[in-house]
Amino acid sequence: MFKQVSIIGFGLIGSSIARSLRYHNATDKLICVDYDEKVNKKVSELGIADIAGADMSLISDSDLVIIAVPVRTCESVAEKISPYLQGTNAIVTDVGSVKKFVIDSVTEILPEGVDFVPGHPIAGTEYSGPEAGFRELFINRWCILTPEIAGKKIAREESVNKIAEMWRLFGSVVEIMDAERHDKILAITSHLPHLIAYTIVGTATDLEEDLKSEVIKFSASGFRDFTRIAASDPVMWRDIFMSNKESVLDILQRFDEDLTALQKFIRRSDGKNLEEFFTKTRNVRKKVIEAGQDSYVYPISLGRKIES
Amino acid sequence: MFKQVSIIGFGLIGSSIARSLRYHNATDKLICVDYDEKVNKKVSELGIADIAGADMSLISDSDLVIIAVPVRTCESVAEKISPYLQGTNAIVTDVGSVKKFVIDSVTEILPEGVDFVPGHPIAGTEYSGPEAGFRELFINRWCILTPEIAGKKIAREESVNKIAEMWRLFGSVVEIMDAERHDKILAITSHLPHLIAYTIVGTATDLEEDLKSEVIKFSASGFRDFTRIAASDPVMWRDIFMSNKESVLDILQRFDEDLTALQKFIRRSDGKNLEEFFTKTRNVRKKVIEAGQDSYVYPISLGRKIES
Repeated sequence: MFKQVSIIGFGLIGSSIARSLRYHNATDKLICVDYDEKVNKKVSELGIADIAGADMSLISDSDLVIIAVPVRTCESVAEKISPYLQGTNAIVTDVGSVKKFVIDSVTEILPEGVDFVPGHPIAGTEYSGPEAGFRELFINRWCILTPEIAGKKIAREESVNKIAEMWRLFGSVVEIMDAERHDKILAITSHLPHLIAYTIVGTATDLEEDLKSEVIKFSASGFRDFTRIAASDPVMWRDIFMSNKESVLDILQRFDEDLTALQKFIRRSDGKNLEEFFTKTRNVRKKVIEAGQDSYVYPISLGRKIES
Repeated sequence: MFKQVSIIGFGLIGSSIARSLRYHNATDKLICVDYDEKVNKKVSELGIADIAGADMSLISDSDLVIIAVPVRTCESVAEKISPYLQGTNAIVTDVGSVKKFVIDSVTEILPEGVDFVPGHPIAGTEYSGPEAGFRELFINRWCILTPEIAGKKIAREESVNKIAEMWRLFGSVVEIMDAERHDKILAITSHLPHLIAYTIVGTATDLEEDLKSEVIKFSASGFRDFTRIAASDPVMWRDIFMSNKESVLDILQRFDEDLTALQKFIRRSDGKNLEEFFTKTRNVRKKVIEAGQDSYVYPISLGRKIES
């Protein structure tokens, strides 16, 4: 499928892509570029790339470059890879959870002839780093490609098709979507839930020590589920919230209004309205189950159960 | 262990207790009293009690009565069972998620000689009703007993021991705790998480239809986990929030302050503080894993995977 693929950033996602490419024999040569030499050492030990290093010139002659770094680092990566892509027809893609921001910061920088196909695999675990990756991560998961923004195409159809083909090879279900719509939907389905989970776990960390230890002890009654989400990579999430600010703040405001309403119902012992609210939300669960989105069989990796 | 056990309220918890009692041959006779005749019909069909009916006189001669109804119904149940417990040494216990409120509404009503041992199995699924119950529900789960409130004992030690013994037989790990402390801890570990989950799912239900269907489609990116929690029984949760008002509002206020802080960090693009917050919460997850509370092997019941 490819002669040479370079992956910039070799964390959970980057290294899982590498494993998938290898497994499917989808590239003759696989390059890993990571700024962290410890990561490159690990990659060499694990043998999941042909060459691993911090020098960007390693990517020369690649027909595909995959940027798998926190979204606010994409711009500087685009600047650094551009000299080595001059005069080529390479495809560049990414895996970020925010699309408009990445498109704005990358497309203008890349040289003429190089296509940027923005991508977002809806997959992950709370673990980070090259050891955390595994090739089954993308199986039966959505991968959203956003080659259009506000009705304007930013990549040739053949480039989009090639990236879609790659994700399908990895086992993903590909969805094409407008970048701004992607950011709006993900703000609700992913960014707000993560923000809320971070908040509730943060609230618990400020408790007095003895109370905190009992909260951990009895965390299975609901709190536990939030700690998993709130264990995700801090830098990655910092960047997501800063780069999808408008959509996140918009949905957060609606959330806040609903929470204030519920708070009032509780204070006033308004059982009628509480019950009505809790009945309404039950139907959403039904729809999630009908859509087949209720559960996954999680793959086992490195002896750990991955609950994503 | 018991001659005759009566269970009032035959939903998920009540029917799971019945199945556990049966499985362990822990009672000679098992009575089910539910106000809903459809439930009693179902119980008779399923054969999980010797007698099922709506008439409270059925409980006569019980040495154990288990109240498994929403917490605000406990008081009227206590009033209705009391005539049939006069002059006995029966034990009465419950399974409610709030303990002070139940103790206040039940203990004074029960006749002299009858001991009330407040209990709370930390177990459940998002399903309700007698068909949803299964006997493995309590295995390896905490069961908290609160026979003391503000330092004052409300039940004889032998009664507490008997109830503890029953839960251990079901596979639970029993913890004895002060009732007020229980309510404070559960407000954090269970009640606030449920309130937040209900809120976020409620926010999503108010979205425009086309956006809502995409939110459901891509719910696996975080939102899905909240829909499961927000599918729990509406009446049960209405009662919990109304009955643990003080503790819930107290922790909700702290949560709200933290959320407002995060909101400000996002609005101001304050990456430093965002990253710091997200790093802090990661350590809580580590502690949850260290405490062995990170995951369970969920039992299969009625052909459904129960994710509790």
